[in-house]
Amino acid sequence: MAGSTFGKKFKVMTWGESHGQALGVVIDGCPAGLMLNEDDIQKYLDLRKPGQNKYATQRNEDDKVEILSGIFQGKTTGTPISLIIYNKSQRSSDYSEIASYYRPGHADYTFDIKYGFRDYRGGGRSSGRETTARVAAGAIALKLLGLFGVEFTTYAKQIGPFEINMDNFDKSNISEDLLRMPDKETSLKAQEYLDKVRAEKDSVGGIIECRIDGVYPGLGDPVFDKLDARLAYAIMSIGAVKGIEFGEGFNVANLKGSENNDEFYINKDVSNKSFDLIKDVSKKTNHSGGVLGGMSDGSTIVFRCAIKPTPSIAKEQRTINKNGEDITVSIKGRHDPIIVPRAVVVVEAMAALTILDAMLENMGTTVQM
Amino acid sequence: MAGSTFGKKFKVMTWGESHGQALGVVIDGCPAGLMLNEDDIQKYLDLRKPGQNKYATQRNEDDKVEILSGIFQGKTTGTPISLIIYNKSQRSSDYSEIASYYRPGHADYTFDIKYGFRDYRGGGRSSGRETTARVAAGAIALKLLGLFGVEFTTYAKQIGPFEINMDNFDKSNISEDLLRMPDKETSLKAQEYLDKVRAEKDSVGGIIECRIDGVYPGLGDPVFDKLDARLAYAIMSIGAVKGIEFGEGFNVANLKGSENNDEFYINKDVSNKSFDLIKDVSKKTNHSGGVLGGMSDGSTIVFRCAIKPTPSIAKEQRTINKNGEDITVSIKGRHDPIIVPRAVVVVEAMAALTILDAMLENMGTTVQM
Amino acid sequence: MAGSTFGKKFKVMTWGESHGQALGVVIDGCPAGLMLNEDDIQKYLDLRKPGQNKYATQRNEDDKVEILSGIFQGKTTGTPISLIIYNKSQRSSDYSEIASYYRPGHADYTFDIKYGFRDYRGGGRSSGRETTARVAAGAIALKLLGLFGVEFTTYAKQIGPFEINMDNFDKSNISEDLLRMPDKETSLKAQEYLDKVRAEKDSVGGIIECRIDGVYPGLGDPVFDKLDARLAYAIMSIGAVKGIEFGEGFNVANLKGSENNDEFYINKDVSNKSFDLIKDVSKKTNHSGGVLGGMSDGSTIVFRCAIKPTPSIAKEQRTINKNGEDITVSIKGRHDPIIVPRAVVVVEAMAALTILDAMLENMGTTVQM
Amino acid sequence: MAGSTFGKKFKVMTWGESHGQALGVVIDGCPAGLMLNEDDIQKYLDLRKPGQNKYATQRNEDDKVEILSGIFQGKTTGTPISLIIYNKSQRSSDYSEIASYYRPGHADYTFDIKYGFRDYRGGGRSSGRETTARVAAGAIALKLLGLFGVEFTTYAKQIGPFEINMDNFDKSNISEDLLRMPDKETSLKAQEYLDKVRAEKDSVGGIIECRIDGVYPGLGDPVFDKLDARLAYAIMSIGAVKGIEFGEGFNVANLKGSENNDEFYINKDVSNKSFDLIKDVSKKTNHSGGVLGGMSDGSTIVFRCAIKPTPSIAKEQRTINKNGEDITVSIKGRHDPIIVPRAVVVVEAMAALTILDAMLENMGTTVQM
Repeated sequence: MAGSTFGKKFKVMTWGESHGQALGVVIDGCPAGLMLNEDDIQKYLDLRKPGQNKYATQRNEDDKVEILSGIFQGKTTGTPISLIIYNKSQRSSDYSEIASYYRPGHADYTFDIKYGFRDYRGGGRSSGRETTARVAAGAIALKLLGLFGVEFTTYAKQIGPFEINMDNFDKSNISEDLLRMPDKETSLKAQEYLDKVRAEKDSVGGIIECRIDGVYPGLGDPVFDKLDARLAYAIMSIGAVKGIEFGEGFNVANLKGSENNDEFYINKDVSNKSFDLIKDVSKKTNHSGGVLGGMSDGSTIVFRCAIKPTPSIAKEQRTINKNGEDITVSIKGRHDPIIVPRAVVVVEAMAALTILDAMLENMGTTVQM
Repeated sequence: MAGSTFGKKFKVMTWGESHGQALGVVIDGCPAGLMLNEDDIQKYLDLRKPGQNKYATQRNEDDKVEILSGIFQGKTTGTPISLIIYNKSQRSSDYSEIASYYRPGHADYTFDIKYGFRDYRGGGRSSGRETTARVAAGAIALKLLGLFGVEFTTYAKQIGPFEINMDNFDKSNISEDLLRMPDKETSLKAQEYLDKVRAEKDSVGGIIECRIDGVYPGLGDPVFDKLDARLAYAIMSIGAVKGIEFGEGFNVANLKGSENNDEFYINKDVSNKSFDLIKDVSKKTNHSGGVLGGMSDGSTIVFRCAIKPTPSIAKEQRTINKNGEDITVSIKGRHDPIIVPRAVVVVEAMAALTILDAMLENMGTTVQM
Repeated sequence: MAGSTFGKKFKVMTWGESHGQALGVVIDGCPAGLMLNEDDIQKYLDLRKPGQNKYATQRNEDDKVEILSGIFQGKTTGTPISLIIYNKSQRSSDYSEIASYYRPGHADYTFDIKYGFRDYRGGGRSSGRETTARVAAGAIALKLLGLFGVEFTTYAKQIGPFEINMDNFDKSNISEDLLRMPDKETSLKAQEYLDKVRAEKDSVGGIIECRIDGVYPGLGDPVFDKLDARLAYAIMSIGAVKGIEFGEGFNVANLKGSENNDEFYINKDVSNKSFDLIKDVSKKTNHSGGVLGGMSDGSTIVFRCAIKPTPSIAKEQRTINKNGEDITVSIKGRHDPIIVPRAVVVVEAMAALTILDAMLENMGTTVQM
Repeated sequence: MAGSTFGKKFKVMTWGESHGQALGVVIDGCPAGLMLNEDDIQKYLDLRKPGQNKYATQRNEDDKVEILSGIFQGKTTGTPISLIIYNKSQRSSDYSEIASYYRPGHADYTFDIKYGFRDYRGGGRSSGRETTARVAAGAIALKLLGLFGVEFTTYAKQIGPFEINMDNFDKSNISEDLLRMPDKETSLKAQEYLDKVRAEKDSVGGIIECRIDGVYPGLGDPVFDKLDARLAYAIMSIGAVKGIEFGEGFNVANLKGSENNDEFYINKDVSNKSFDLIKDVSKKTNHSGGVLGGMSDGSTIVFRCAIKPTPSIAKEQRTINKNGEDITVSIKGRHDPIIVPRAVVVVEAMAALTILDAMLENMGTTVQM
């Protein structure tokens, strides 16, 4: 019931509906002394902004963030940071149609059962627009993690049947690419495919991959609060995600132990000096995806998540209405034919919130500290 | 750091090391009035017991559970239930070898970095034996869920390259099958394969599938605490799990919206009576895996998780020791060539703990209640 | 660090500084279906509004609350309710003086040590103004509790040396009384005293009493989460509170067991019908203050808390400045000579948040439910 | 419902009933590397042991603690520490009488309402014996805090009408004194009084004071999680406590601001060196009790709590039985005529758990850390 709160130390509470007055987030637990202004957040928020290209919702939103508290003289004070984004595009639409039936693939049906009724305007609280607040909070986490050398690379790995060729991997292409792919060639093929599917009034799914470098080893706990378990929770909490895997992921079913284990190696000759367990050790492979026994192992954390095709499609579908009648619907409105490109930054934001929280949680693990 | 606690209302704290004196769990938040005795737990615990057949650790453990508190006159009192399982097999082995190096695919390395040292006897807290306590707690959750009509069907779906044929699905075979497969034919092929791999001193991975029927719709919350997010956290917290997916899972990348959406239908003629949103509605497909917008939708909850091959293999591997030297090791001892069969009950236990917790959390969602 | 979050089920996160842009609160976990509008909150908020009479801060604030989310068609939706109160009176004062030294009795010194610096404008986050957000959230809790028949009576019991005479207790006087006392005669004496102390540039403390009727028995848990322990936490979290006691409170030190125990009695002849443990039982005394073994016992919950004199006084005091010099200061500005009257509603709001949370937590305590 | 868990980082879950098989506690979140053995805990546990003198229960219990997990090579490993104390004195008494009625001043009545029934043997979970587990956990917290220079002085300040004379304060007397008073003269008078009251089959209340030196300034958070609020929650969670106050406590009602504020002073000439906000500053008074704005201010933390007279008295009292009849009872058995002396160590243990938890929580408050 109180499911809009995330994190233990860097605690985030989001609020707001798609077509309400505003959306926002309060962050309780941001360390004091971080230089922070609205631009830091706005830049990141702009990455998920609608209306940027032909594959993104044509909704005209500025998504202008305001900081209402927690900053003084340009720095975080250690007290709650309240961020607000007013909804500019609250058109007084006619919602009577969408209010009357249950859209397939949406939360309309479960919302009505759980709460007795729902805010049906634009999907209400279950709209993808809810992720705006996550991204705003994630921007702060990312800035803080950046100070500690943690770096994220997140991109579309697959769109429909088109998967990137790792040999063509070009990191610089991600931010420019309409589909957030690091492989221009595959992106063009996927775009062609998208145009075709959109013409059929249908939509497409895909896979996002996230790579996190510079994570200090030892984050995460050995039993329930494993780092990968916490990341899985965070990523699966994004509406369209249907699966997550780390390192070899589902492919481990096909591997033998000798193929899946990552051997350890000494980086260099340590005979003349004292051995440093962190700096002098490496793995040549990373089948584990950077996590061993639930704790970061110092190598790149790698995970992938599956994003379902946009459920709102203009193609005719069968469903039921509130009167208990079988009907046929065609969802109108401004809907992306693909969720993946805009979800890239949401996945990254949730991963950043998780890593930062695990880092703050990790303090005090030993008496020596 | 405090990562051995699970759940919000049905709160579970596990403790104990593989070769310590005992393992156990305390459950804080079990509703009062449930008939419960040690047999209820023992029966379920026996399903993951080692030494049952040739594919399971030959460790000789009774895993006899004792209830130390929280029960009076055969019923739960609402106060903490403390369960203990003494370790019978604490052989005073020579651990000097395992203490000296870092096993590939294990938590040895990350444990030393995080905590400064580790209990290396049998893997300490990161041993699969830790899951005994989860299963014991899960047995109580399952008994309680059973009263509400919730039923679990959990089995090995794939072992190495051998995946079950759903046409041969025979639920009754699961408990008898050495590999917990519901398809005898595939199981025999997988067993042959396992014998071969074991002879090569290697190990095999696989996939477990869990189906949960009878879950009341509306469990889980629409934003962070989605039911699938919570299940993902629970299942990914099991040591060997490297990925989880719901319904179509990673296959959504290949589907169109019109293929992935589940249409709603009216079960029967409702024209003569008032329409019941729960009883009169069904989906003909279940691509979503029983969860819509993070809330259970009343259909079967379906997820799969990937289990890595046993990391402890007798085959030679390279690694490093505590002196900073590159070495070659061959892990000795009683190790399963496959984790999957014994993990089936652990996956089910963690799913049961999650569903029960979500059910207790869901109370008070509306004022009418 | 993340200390601005309160409650487990009815979760409240407050934010905002005294002289920042706005203050607010997000409530995550309000049950769906409660009729709620801004007036419900505004009426209650007006009770703590400054500038109402000569004993309250002469600050000119409207404290106009806006609901930004969580309400649809006049009812709570079960999703987060975001409330905001803009600060109208952010005068661009000269804060250089207050920034330069540490006010006795304030958090200036501890804030600087903990966070490295502080928002010194009007006390920042440690201002009494922070309680506006608590009162706003409390208004919602009170409305919900009212539906279940829970009623609060909160008033000033003592101001300076003047304690009310229980024989003169007149509930209707509380809301009209400048000092929120239920005894007009004592209030007049206290007002005379206050005028005198204020002329001396000094301030006065007092005691607030809260009585809660209609609380269902069995709320609270028998070990750590006792209802009185949770109330103590809630009330002691109000800045000026220095102590709390239940029922006989500190007077128990002077009582014998036979004097302090409350005997149970049967209300009426139950011989002809089945005995109802709740309706047919009463205590003739209430030394326990309505809580037995940490659980509500069905009688009136009674507690008192001690409120310190306003620390900001115009009278000269010694202190130190940021340069490490001993100085003498006289605190200027609009400060109440007494905190008690305006704190009455804050105490009530925190008690309401606690009782409601315990009520929602209590659901699912037995299997029968 | 899940109310047997305490703490956020140093998380403690207690379990066990007075006459069950055993009592215990699991600590999830103890930092790794602390030297710890059973003696460390046993010594402290012995301070609350029954049967030590004529004012303590004549129950014959060894209260022998065993460590079941979390320690390796004499040091904490960072994983859960499980402690168990077997009940030796589970006499197969005849409990039919106590089962049949509701003892005044006890939780019998509220337990039956909340849970539907109760473990009536010796008070079950609501017995004072439950605090054994708190003391065991507290011993570990105290050892850890000792390494950081935090010191506790806890004693009986008042017993019945006899309050210690601070001029006679002799710390060394506390541990030897039958009543844990630091003033031998007052203790003798109180003992005489106790003998008299006991002969009347009655019992006596009192006040415990706790002083905590060496607490680093800045612990606790400025809004809800104030250090004094957390201490109030911890101390009020002890069964017999009816009130708590800090520094001047309830006396603030009688003070003026100029009397209650603590002025700051520079300790010495700082003109020649850089000013140290912690080392160079002191207060000459401590009316605040060591907490300012919810954060420790570096001076001694001082609180007092009121302990009610033992509710179990042999003197006749009226009450009701389960059949709905008014009856008269005289509670038999081995009961202390005064709770205070044995509660001293429980109060100290709960304070230690709170301070340690606040200290671990405080890590990461600023970016510089």
